[in-house]
Amino acid sequence: MTDDTSMLISSLQNPGVKQLVKLRDRSERETTDQFLIEGYRELFRAVDAGYPIETLYICPELFLGENEQALIERITHKGGRLLTCSEAVFRKISYRDRPDGLVALAPQQHLKLMHLDKKILHNATPFLVVAEAIEKPGNLGTILRSSDAVGLDGLIVCDRCTDIHNPNVVRASVGTLFTVPVVEAEGQETLEWLKSKGISILAATPSATLEFTEVDMTGPLAIAVGTEQLGLSKRWMKQADIQVRIPMCGIADSLNVAMATTLLLYEALKQRKKNQTHR
Amino acid sequence: MTDDTSMLISSLQNPGVKQLVKLRDRSERETTDQFLIEGYRELFRAVDAGYPIETLYICPELFLGENEQALIERITHKGGRLLTCSEAVFRKISYRDRPDGLVALAPQQHLKLMHLDKKILHNATPFLVVAEAIEKPGNLGTILRSSDAVGLDGLIVCDRCTDIHNPNVVRASVGTLFTVPVVEAEGQETLEWLKSKGISILAATPSATLEFTEVDMTGPLAIAVGTEQLGLSKRWMKQADIQVRIPMCGIADSLNVAMATTLLLYEALKQRKKNQTHR
Repeated sequence: MTDDTSMLISSLQNPGVKQLVKLRDRSERETTDQFLIEGYRELFRAVDAGYPIETLYICPELFLGENEQALIERITHKGGRLLTCSEAVFRKISYRDRPDGLVALAPQQHLKLMHLDKKILHNATPFLVVAEAIEKPGNLGTILRSSDAVGLDGLIVCDRCTDIHNPNVVRASVGTLFTVPVVEAEGQETLEWLKSKGISILAATPSATLEFTEVDMTGPLAIAVGTEQLGLSKRWMKQADIQVRIPMCGIADSLNVAMATTLLLYEALKQRKKNQTHR
Repeated sequence: MTDDTSMLISSLQNPGVKQLVKLRDRSERETTDQFLIEGYRELFRAVDAGYPIETLYICPELFLGENEQALIERITHKGGRLLTCSEAVFRKISYRDRPDGLVALAPQQHLKLMHLDKKILHNATPFLVVAEAIEKPGNLGTILRSSDAVGLDGLIVCDRCTDIHNPNVVRASVGTLFTVPVVEAEGQETLEWLKSKGISILAATPSATLEFTEVDMTGPLAIAVGTEQLGLSKRWMKQADIQVRIPMCGIADSLNVAMATTLLLYEALKQRKKNQTHR
């Protein structure tokens, strides 16, 4: 355990501080393979999930609750380095309007499809989401939050546009980024993997005949969703085993991608719970 | 029809340009009672809904489609002033990373509960949402988008935190801000109005016994949702006629407010459609 709390970082020119600010840029995150985890809830969930923390930057003046000390001890106990910042420095490194005094530097973790093999090995009805080329970190984070809520086995990010380690993914996911297995893979590879496992692909499209509440979602299932602008690509739409429609009664022709995903996830959850009860 | 297209605005110091940039600030929007509508889809829907446009700023170099001219003609035909900007000027007034060459200045419209009286007069089963003190414009906009999709009769924004004329509300709503009636009202007044109309208030809370798919949503209904951080206030929770639970199977204790609202909206839609068919 390294504890530098006696030393207060009060210079905005501190190299560590400068590095943290740089990590807001995707290119810097990719070069260093590091990223930031900001906020009590997000860090708590990361630590709970056993996610490694390299360095924890704190500013006790900004703490909002009373449990920060316990969290800090859990992190330092596992070997995380602790650094205390002045408020001015912390506000500079924070990505938020209302920082809560906790930002951590952590290594990125990259899961491949192989990781899911083990996860679904003894699972007769895997429950997955494939997110193709989602652009907005907020949408990806929100999809993660809903995925956690339905107990999803994994989210496969295909041909990614958004960096899954973007601070807004961490924030919108409120830390579920660390509890839902997130796999990065190419589209073709994912399609082949799903087919090889006998997992049905479900896609939503306005042209489908059946509504999403009218199809069976109790089997091995991957809900595939696409970009905000264009929806799912033709490749995925063609390969979909089940096509469904989400009713649209107004003037708009589609829902926000995270809303559509959440509706599909909860319909699947309802059917699966009912199915289990009936067994 | 005033048409100043012959004059190109190329100076960043142009007073009109400066004013548009200022309108990103809430205080300026409130002082002038004006706001911005940016983007083809958003403007198209505003015009379709008969929303008045004062001035349309265009930059043809940035147009993405082929239908812009028809939209411009509809606006100028109704008396909207047309001004053409250089690309540099347009990029300054645009709120977006990828502007599509259309930004309009429009007067704010403020609807009161009274407006809904007429709307629901001959409607035996009004279908409303009450959004209490939502903080993030993106959430409010997304709730509007889902509200449009289920054919909601109106959204009542209570004790508003987010300015409904924030550019991000317009954007996240993809123009449904102009098609879903949005009423601004105080909480107490809204409660009394709902009670007087015999409209049941439905609230989601983790402590409820019944899941949201297990209650009857076919009658006169107002789905009440609260702030991102704290959920619905005690006042509303206490007055709720129906309390429901959204299943949470993961580590997080709640969904994003727009996700929760969308789930409730679509459950209500499903039940209502079924009910109509059975009549």
